[in-house]
Amino acid sequence: MKDAKLVLKANPDHQSIVSLSKEIAIGGQEIVIIGGPCAVESLTQMETVARELKSAPIQALRGGVYKPRTSPYAFQGAGLEGLEILASVSKRYDLPVVTEVMAISQIKEISAYADMLQVGSRNMQNFDLLKALGQAGKPILLKRGLAATIEEFVMAAEYIMSHGNPNVVLCERGIRSFDSYTRNVLDLGAVVALKQLTHLPVIVDPSHAAGRRELIADLSRAAIACGADGLIVESHPEPEKSVSDAQQALSIEAMTQLVRSLKPVAEAVGRKTYGVQCPQFAIV
Amino acid sequence: MKDAKLVLKANPDHQSIVSLSKEIAIGGQEIVIIGGPCAVESLTQMETVARELKSAPIQALRGGVYKPRTSPYAFQGAGLEGLEILASVSKRYDLPVVTEVMAISQIKEISAYADMLQVGSRNMQNFDLLKALGQAGKPILLKRGLAATIEEFVMAAEYIMSHGNPNVVLCERGIRSFDSYTRNVLDLGAVVALKQLTHLPVIVDPSHAAGRRELIADLSRAAIACGADGLIVESHPEPEKSVSDAQQALSIEAMTQLVRSLKPVAEAVGRKTYGVQCPQFAIV
Amino acid sequence: MKDAKLVLKANPDHQSIVSLSKEIAIGGQEIVIIGGPCAVESLTQMETVARELKSAPIQALRGGVYKPRTSPYAFQGAGLEGLEILASVSKRYDLPVVTEVMAISQIKEISAYADMLQVGSRNMQNFDLLKALGQAGKPILLKRGLAATIEEFVMAAEYIMSHGNPNVVLCERGIRSFDSYTRNVLDLGAVVALKQLTHLPVIVDPSHAAGRRELIADLSRAAIACGADGLIVESHPEPEKSVSDAQQALSIEAMTQLVRSLKPVAEAVGRKTYGVQCPQFAIV
Amino acid sequence: MKDAKLVLKANPDHQSIVSLSKEIAIGGQEIVIIGGPCAVESLTQMETVARELKSAPIQALRGGVYKPRTSPYAFQGAGLEGLEILASVSKRYDLPVVTEVMAISQIKEISAYADMLQVGSRNMQNFDLLKALGQAGKPILLKRGLAATIEEFVMAAEYIMSHGNPNVVLCERGIRSFDSYTRNVLDLGAVVALKQLTHLPVIVDPSHAAGRRELIADLSRAAIACGADGLIVESHPEPEKSVSDAQQALSIEAMTQLVRSLKPVAEAVGRKTYGVQCPQFAIV
Repeated sequence: MKDAKLVLKANPDHQSIVSLSKEIAIGGQEIVIIGGPCAVESLTQMETVARELKSAPIQALRGGVYKPRTSPYAFQGAGLEGLEILASVSKRYDLPVVTEVMAISQIKEISAYADMLQVGSRNMQNFDLLKALGQAGKPILLKRGLAATIEEFVMAAEYIMSHGNPNVVLCERGIRSFDSYTRNVLDLGAVVALKQLTHLPVIVDPSHAAGRRELIADLSRAAIACGADGLIVESHPEPEKSVSDAQQALSIEAMTQLVRSLKPVAEAVGRKTYGVQCPQFAIV
Repeated sequence: MKDAKLVLKANPDHQSIVSLSKEIAIGGQEIVIIGGPCAVESLTQMETVARELKSAPIQALRGGVYKPRTSPYAFQGAGLEGLEILASVSKRYDLPVVTEVMAISQIKEISAYADMLQVGSRNMQNFDLLKALGQAGKPILLKRGLAATIEEFVMAAEYIMSHGNPNVVLCERGIRSFDSYTRNVLDLGAVVALKQLTHLPVIVDPSHAAGRRELIADLSRAAIACGADGLIVESHPEPEKSVSDAQQALSIEAMTQLVRSLKPVAEAVGRKTYGVQCPQFAIV
Repeated sequence: MKDAKLVLKANPDHQSIVSLSKEIAIGGQEIVIIGGPCAVESLTQMETVARELKSAPIQALRGGVYKPRTSPYAFQGAGLEGLEILASVSKRYDLPVVTEVMAISQIKEISAYADMLQVGSRNMQNFDLLKALGQAGKPILLKRGLAATIEEFVMAAEYIMSHGNPNVVLCERGIRSFDSYTRNVLDLGAVVALKQLTHLPVIVDPSHAAGRRELIADLSRAAIACGADGLIVESHPEPEKSVSDAQQALSIEAMTQLVRSLKPVAEAVGRKTYGVQCPQFAIV
Repeated sequence: MKDAKLVLKANPDHQSIVSLSKEIAIGGQEIVIIGGPCAVESLTQMETVARELKSAPIQALRGGVYKPRTSPYAFQGAGLEGLEILASVSKRYDLPVVTEVMAISQIKEISAYADMLQVGSRNMQNFDLLKALGQAGKPILLKRGLAATIEEFVMAAEYIMSHGNPNVVLCERGIRSFDSYTRNVLDLGAVVALKQLTHLPVIVDPSHAAGRRELIADLSRAAIACGADGLIVESHPEPEKSVSDAQQALSIEAMTQLVRSLKPVAEAVGRKTYGVQCPQFAIV
């Protein structure tokens, strides 16, 4: 990490806070829960997710509109139409939205609709994309690569920051390993290390790490207990009908239960949770 | 896991409890903390550890007397003399002891002194040793192999149980991965999976997983938050002077702080911690 | 691999041949050796490499002008100036050139100078880049990701082919593993599998796999013996002065020796090597 | 490797030769092929293997009689009866035999029947077994652990040597990785490194590495091309009926073809193959 200039902590108390909206920020005392489906499928789907999870409460919405799929023949995302759905729901429920940007050509378009731009695992070392995101003017959610070392992860954030964007949130989402029982191995040691090494907020994606919904609630509590600043969790009104990642999405009920279970865990390690905000916005 | 007959849960509430002493058991409502050095070095060392950590409080002592070392020229453990130290300290402080058994020929000797026999990672699939431990008459702490799948780990426990010993505790201690920043990668997804699949108690060794002492407290809290039944943590009166694993041992002070921080985390997930027991035994 | 339509063999004899120039093609009976430095540093450097290795003989030149570096502060490549050097040397020595394209915006520029476009490991699942390369009109050298499965690798090629470009060569270059003795682990089992599953040519990069120059010659011979259609090997006039990957570059002498040692190995498995071609072009 | 005293090369020409019989030795100019089934099942099976492969020719027989199986309920090997079959066939066909020893208690018994004792991957760091094998008086075939580093592998050999047995042959058999397409990943970089670091013979087990029979011949040729001193290959008269590892056993015909294909590869790298020896012994 000898080359890192902007990412490392200047002193043990050095902690950056990245704002998603006027009310919601990652890296402060409150942990932040981002929920929503793998992919934006329809207005009804997103409407249901937002309405139901607003009171869980979650603090931000996720939903992919450009999807990195192993197969070129798999659903590649709803694109612009998906962005419009995201933005409409976001506004109505006062929930900032995070969505993935896969190419430089998408940055401008997505920035017009989303509050935070996600760099997926497969693009963690897409250095030209990172450089361009340095100029994006939106906070970046940088997911760790499938087999990226902690140093490579930190240096990917350094690419974004050194090109002008200080608002980077790191996301541990599991690494490749030899056991196929779980989809990936959630590396909470990396979360602890990143919190100690860098001043950037660090959140955890237990959904892609586990790949099995029955493991997600326990892993989420573990993530908060070890110091993560938040979670990004896949949740779907009808998980088994999800167009992608159906095995790992939580139902609305399971997601709500999970969110509520986090309050005592957060408090046990000196953190807080956001309360239900502006419930009147949820009335349609 | 199709071949597992004895290890798997019969129903969701099926949970075994393994007793270490009259007062201390693993798998019940209370989490169990096992502390102590990598290797038994001297009576003074063990005396200090036991006396100081008894009031943390920890519930059991660890300390290796037969050590699996990569090099044949490295310190191989204090042997019988170490066992006598362990037993003497154990009695005086009313702390059950766990120590590693590396060979069938050591089972009888170690069983005369220790309350629980540990199978190290390198021996997780030493099947003849597992079979012999099925007859040992002592509870077994079975550590996961360096690159063992969850299925292989479960089936190793099945070896012990099918040869007659129902008292097996599983221990996740990190798996091999590509990043050398941490010694291993702590796989809490496996802990959650094992708690769901098997009725055996599952504990976590954050020390060997992290290999760096500054990561251990946060990982310990994560382990408890995701449902582990306890922890086994390396602690040494003078960590930097430890004959082995010096980078990962906690000082007495750090260990005490860690133990105290676990109470609210355990309670946040519906568990309890043991209180300080029989403090009069600690007065020498 | 159920989704693959264009990449898989239609029958055991199905084998594609990808031409780099009028004389040189990958996938035919002759194995193809591509040599050159990690990065284009100067005209003198490339001139020396081309002149000396033309008679080894190698069949194509490699040299990066846009470099994917872990640190944003490391040398990022000579860019356009490097491309001009490549093209000038290529013409003079009648050696087709391969160079990496890191972004969609570079495709047109690089295509004007290079004979084959390389997709680096970090971009193997940069799907927008793959789609754009489907329209590039140049053969593509697709390197396997650091932790890509065989299926993901095959499907990345399917992205390029399904977007219009049938000329794809696969390159195994080592995968991430737990042992830091070698930089990566060369996975020749994947090479054998890819040759059996797909009709695409498959070459091997032993330099990035080993990361240590003393291992490269033996691994190169192994690659040819198991059926690889060629090699891409880092070679530098003064390896220890290389601006990047200095530990793994072969000297001109070592490279020449290696190339010569491949002839009997290729013949032992029913392949041929290219002879020295048009030596008069090498006279300047 | 700083602790290694006996295993490392004293100079580049330092090479140990381990004899299996009066005629057959590993580490000399001739490569050695060891063939046979995963497990000894019957006299007829072993008789067929020996008779048919004697003229391939292979130089030694393999066959497990004590089997390390993931499940305690799986076939654990034919035991003493299997040893008697091995010895009878060995004598009749003048083929030295290699078989696995899983426990100290088996050493004496197996030594009475076998010419070489194999330490399986799961026991590579069963240090008490290694120490005991230092006194065994038979050559040892030490297989690399599933996730053992090169240093750990070398130091395991050092355990055997430092306890009195200089006759150790190392065997690379694939390491654990993230892709389930192959059973393990054959690490030929380790073979090259081991040949450069140590004076011990190094052989390769492509069967366990690949786990798929269609990959084995090509990987075998690769192993010889990179300098391995021999191969140990699973072969069975009726592969699909094998009691274990049925997917990876070669038929007698495939094995014979493989052996014959190795001669030109060995010669291409300056090695030789053994000719058919004492064919009269094969007449029964």
